[in-house]
Amino acid sequence: MGAMPEAVSIREVGPRDGLQNEEPVPTAAKVRLIDALSATGVGRIEAVSFVHPKAIPQMADADEVWRRAVKNPAVSYSALVPNSRGAQRALAAGFREIEVVVSASDTHNRKNVNRSTAESLDDIAALVPVLHEAGARVEVIVSTAFGCPYEGDVAPERVAAIVDRVRADGADRIAFGDTTGMGTPRRVRELLSRVRERHADAPLLLHFHNTRGTALANILTALELGVTEFDAAVGGLGGCPYAPGASGNVATEEVVHLLHDMGIRTGIDLDALIGAAELAREIVGKELPSGVLRAGPRTRLTAAG
Amino acid sequence: MGAMPEAVSIREVGPRDGLQNEEPVPTAAKVRLIDALSATGVGRIEAVSFVHPKAIPQMADADEVWRRAVKNPAVSYSALVPNSRGAQRALAAGFREIEVVVSASDTHNRKNVNRSTAESLDDIAALVPVLHEAGARVEVIVSTAFGCPYEGDVAPERVAAIVDRVRADGADRIAFGDTTGMGTPRRVRELLSRVRERHADAPLLLHFHNTRGTALANILTALELGVTEFDAAVGGLGGCPYAPGASGNVATEEVVHLLHDMGIRTGIDLDALIGAAELAREIVGKELPSGVLRAGPRTRLTAAG
Repeated sequence: MGAMPEAVSIREVGPRDGLQNEEPVPTAAKVRLIDALSATGVGRIEAVSFVHPKAIPQMADADEVWRRAVKNPAVSYSALVPNSRGAQRALAAGFREIEVVVSASDTHNRKNVNRSTAESLDDIAALVPVLHEAGARVEVIVSTAFGCPYEGDVAPERVAAIVDRVRADGADRIAFGDTTGMGTPRRVRELLSRVRERHADAPLLLHFHNTRGTALANILTALELGVTEFDAAVGGLGGCPYAPGASGNVATEEVVHLLHDMGIRTGIDLDALIGAAELAREIVGKELPSGVLRAGPRTRLTAAG
Repeated sequence: MGAMPEAVSIREVGPRDGLQNEEPVPTAAKVRLIDALSATGVGRIEAVSFVHPKAIPQMADADEVWRRAVKNPAVSYSALVPNSRGAQRALAAGFREIEVVVSASDTHNRKNVNRSTAESLDDIAALVPVLHEAGARVEVIVSTAFGCPYEGDVAPERVAAIVDRVRADGADRIAFGDTTGMGTPRRVRELLSRVRERHADAPLLLHFHNTRGTALANILTALELGVTEFDAAVGGLGGCPYAPGASGNVATEEVVHLLHDMGIRTGIDLDALIGAAELAREIVGKELPSGVLRAGPRTRLTAAG
């Protein structure tokens, strides 16, 4: 085990990536979830996306959700946008942390936005200066970075070339999305090695799905390689509607439980987070995949009775 | 990442530890599952336990299950026994690989067998020569080795002292059971370091439950420390009836999927194993926690259609 970081920054994506991939829930429920998460000590929350309501009805009320949510000054809130129209809505709503997405695999990108990866990269190149002009920071999320459900393995070089391009075009931050849970410790190691050769200092966030049980093993590997930023969704909410077979995001409380056991700080109160996961379960009205939600943390003992 | 082993030996425990902790299923179903597993290439199968039928009705038909199962000469089959009576039944049935159990934490041992850890260790000391005399090899499974749901953390020294004792008493092999999924990469590292100081060469097997999502991260850590033997249960069958909050064993197909992606051989045909997991799901009549069962391996692509 290499030297581990002393602290990790978690971005909570349950309200957006999570709820976007569940059956639609009422506006008030979304607001309650964001507010509960804002009180856990988490430093970053992906709050909403500004997408076309016909494409993604789950986010049709993004403006109202955001208007009603408590804005905790200790939290950095972000919004995801699919295009220029969404970016304008996000800016008008007051967001200054904006995420845009492109898939590393052409087939997945076409399925997702009906454009080639190259076309999406051109769109991003045009969008970044507009967002910068408005005082926003731009994160480019590279989806299918660890594999594509249609094309299979995605060569690390292909992902690295996308990083080259978007960094040159002004992206402030990069995220790699394991869209359908094809990531493994080996793939994490291979991709990070390749990217770090050319972008040693680029702010990099990893986003894992636990589709095949590997999410915490992937995070452990990434920690050993010095990564200190991860996405996670409370309760393990969400999946990917465009990706057959995908299950939810790695559960935030499973990540925090692991990190705290290793002595790595997150700033998050695990009990408060589990409370937010209980709320998430109540909101979607079904069991969620999080083991720490079901069983509690390892420190929660049972009376011998 | 340290040097990884080239090959790993998996012991499939679904027929025993898995089915013992599910609702009882018919004898014929147990036989079918063992036979399906025997054809996957797995080298070891924990087939049955010889326990009192009132205590564990799921294993009341152990003799008949074993009589009817195909004995593949390429597979080493084992049985778990709680006491001398069970050991005699296992020997009479023809088993020569016998597992006995003791919990590292006194409270768990008392809950499990109504005896102190020290009393169970004395029982094992008396049983080992009897089993050796009959030509059997004895594995001592140390339960709650990574934590006890009643007592909390279990000091690595306590587990190491049990290893000292049972090795001195003639145990051929040692297993550490993460009975309620309290294991984490940190705990794996701490326990193995302590035990390896004094028993560098003892055959050691690790048994993880995925209660809090950490099982594959724990296995990854153990691989880095040179461990090459792991228990796993097809489909993620089973839990622990004496341990509140416990969910199932780590799923064999998730372990094999991870190992093969790392280039580590197991001798197991993953497709055949997933077939056995489908059978396990059919037998227990409910969804099982295995992600690789639900989503398929990462190499199974979706038609772009």
